[in-house]
Amino acid sequence: MGVDRSTRAPLHQQIADTLRQEILGHDLPPGEALPSEAALCERFGVARSVVRQAVAGLSGDGLVIRRQGRPTIVAPPAEYRRLVQRATGMFDQFARRGHQLRTTVLDLSPAPPPPGGRDFLGTDDTIRIERVRLVDGDPLSYVRTWLPADRVPGLHAEHLADASLHRLLARAYDLRPMRGRRQVHAVAADARLADALGTESGDPLLLLEGGTTDQHDRPLEWFSAWHRADRVVFDIDVSESMETLRLDATDAPSDADSNTRDAVSDAAGPQQAAATSEAAPSGADLAEARRLLGELSRLLH
Amino acid sequence: MGVDRSTRAPLHQQIADTLRQEILGHDLPPGEALPSEAALCERFGVARSVVRQAVAGLSGDGLVIRRQGRPTIVAPPAEYRRLVQRATGMFDQFARRGHQLRTTVLDLSPAPPPPGGRDFLGTDDTIRIERVRLVDGDPLSYVRTWLPADRVPGLHAEHLADASLHRLLARAYDLRPMRGRRQVHAVAADARLADALGTESGDPLLLLEGGTTDQHDRPLEWFSAWHRADRVVFDIDVSESMETLRLDATDAPSDADSNTRDAVSDAAGPQQAAATSEAAPSGADLAEARRLLGELSRLLH
Repeated sequence: MGVDRSTRAPLHQQIADTLRQEILGHDLPPGEALPSEAALCERFGVARSVVRQAVAGLSGDGLVIRRQGRPTIVAPPAEYRRLVQRATGMFDQFARRGHQLRTTVLDLSPAPPPPGGRDFLGTDDTIRIERVRLVDGDPLSYVRTWLPADRVPGLHAEHLADASLHRLLARAYDLRPMRGRRQVHAVAADARLADALGTESGDPLLLLEGGTTDQHDRPLEWFSAWHRADRVVFDIDVSESMETLRLDATDAPSDADSNTRDAVSDAAGPQQAAATSEAAPSGADLAEARRLLGELSRLLH
Repeated sequence: MGVDRSTRAPLHQQIADTLRQEILGHDLPPGEALPSEAALCERFGVARSVVRQAVAGLSGDGLVIRRQGRPTIVAPPAEYRRLVQRATGMFDQFARRGHQLRTTVLDLSPAPPPPGGRDFLGTDDTIRIERVRLVDGDPLSYVRTWLPADRVPGLHAEHLADASLHRLLARAYDLRPMRGRRQVHAVAADARLADALGTESGDPLLLLEGGTTDQHDRPLEWFSAWHRADRVVFDIDVSESMETLRLDATDAPSDADSNTRDAVSDAAGPQQAAATSEAAPSGADLAEARRLLGELSRLLH
């Protein structure tokens, strides 16, 4: 894992590029101490002055923080967090944290949804909205939303400038986004998205896609939202106990035996229960549900 | 949006590259019809034969599907899905769907966690495990896990080959991963990760990071799991109703006024309730909790 002395890039540049990749890939995570100068000299087979120049370059780019008499550390990135389990739109989530989310509407016009959206919405007669969302002037995400045309008569682009689509749907149409299933992808920015988001073509983007139903369980929106991966992180709360009650049919075991073959004999905990609860509610399911009932009761009384 | 006639790349290659970017970036989503030959000729300002050659190239790469007498469509990617709200490990989630997840243990040795992991685990005395997980011989993810050393005495790499860490923790140590908070990032693969995952340096990866507590609410593991973005999608179930009950303190409104200033006056639905429920349980909270209680009761009786 040395450097390539046959190319024309300076050694310190090659070392900085390797470390940059490792920082951006989280192989060297935020807050982590950079390996010592001695360790870097050994790894790359170069003199200490070359390593110093490489680290100075990273520091200039804001990727590491040099501290007097203490190890250099990987800088924490400037990240906005989004709790993706919630139907609450970005606008409200950011407002709660004191960030003002601005919205530029690039287009609002009749256009059919992609196949996944058509299946979800059950119609081709949709309005497509293209928006860029910014915080402090910096683009965070590019959002493409499809709404059934007959549910949002009179919707205009100007209603959505610097506004929340979800609030507008509630206020003007009495439609409240409630639940749905989302997919998270990592994709490389194409030229158009890179241009809209102020990033480089090929840079990783965090793509959230899916549909949301309203308070009457009717399909309300389908969307694709590309987020700048250097600025946005999705937060997810994991709770094993919720699984046992919210297991969906698509997650059914294709072969119950393959799952229980290696089962934990004395630990028929929630994990195993979740895997087998299609057949019949297990004792663990019931126990867990009763525990939740207790918790809910305490909340209410 | 034409082509660049000054470079030496053939026109059809340039067009194929542009469309490939748009497909990989989901700007042209899976299942979507490719624009017609006539539309592509007009967009790129080239002859029909050039467009045909470009589309043939994409078809050869498996990115589009040409169908006799019907529009060419963007091919669905070969994707493995992971429901990330669950503490259940990948091993069990995949087994349920009939995929056999293989695991190669690259390293298991004492090593301190990164700063986020140290904060979560409350110790520097940890075992670090490096694993690659494969389905049908293809690498899907690279997982780095830290466990408190004193909780897993005698843990050896061979215990984890082609096995589930979570099952092993339950069976051998009576430790069951239950809940935690996770972050999802999109990152570019560095050289080491690209090599381990059989992808190109710079390709987007889906990174899941976080900690999990056990059945006694004690910190059990911290991990970073990089997934090939062309093969893995994270699924998330969104439920607005859950929000009102599971609101956490870190999401408290920094300025209640800024959130309600523009509030939907007649729609004090769950969204607004969630934003203000720290102060006192709102009517909507209670109503929602009662509804859930009803659902739970039906489940049980």
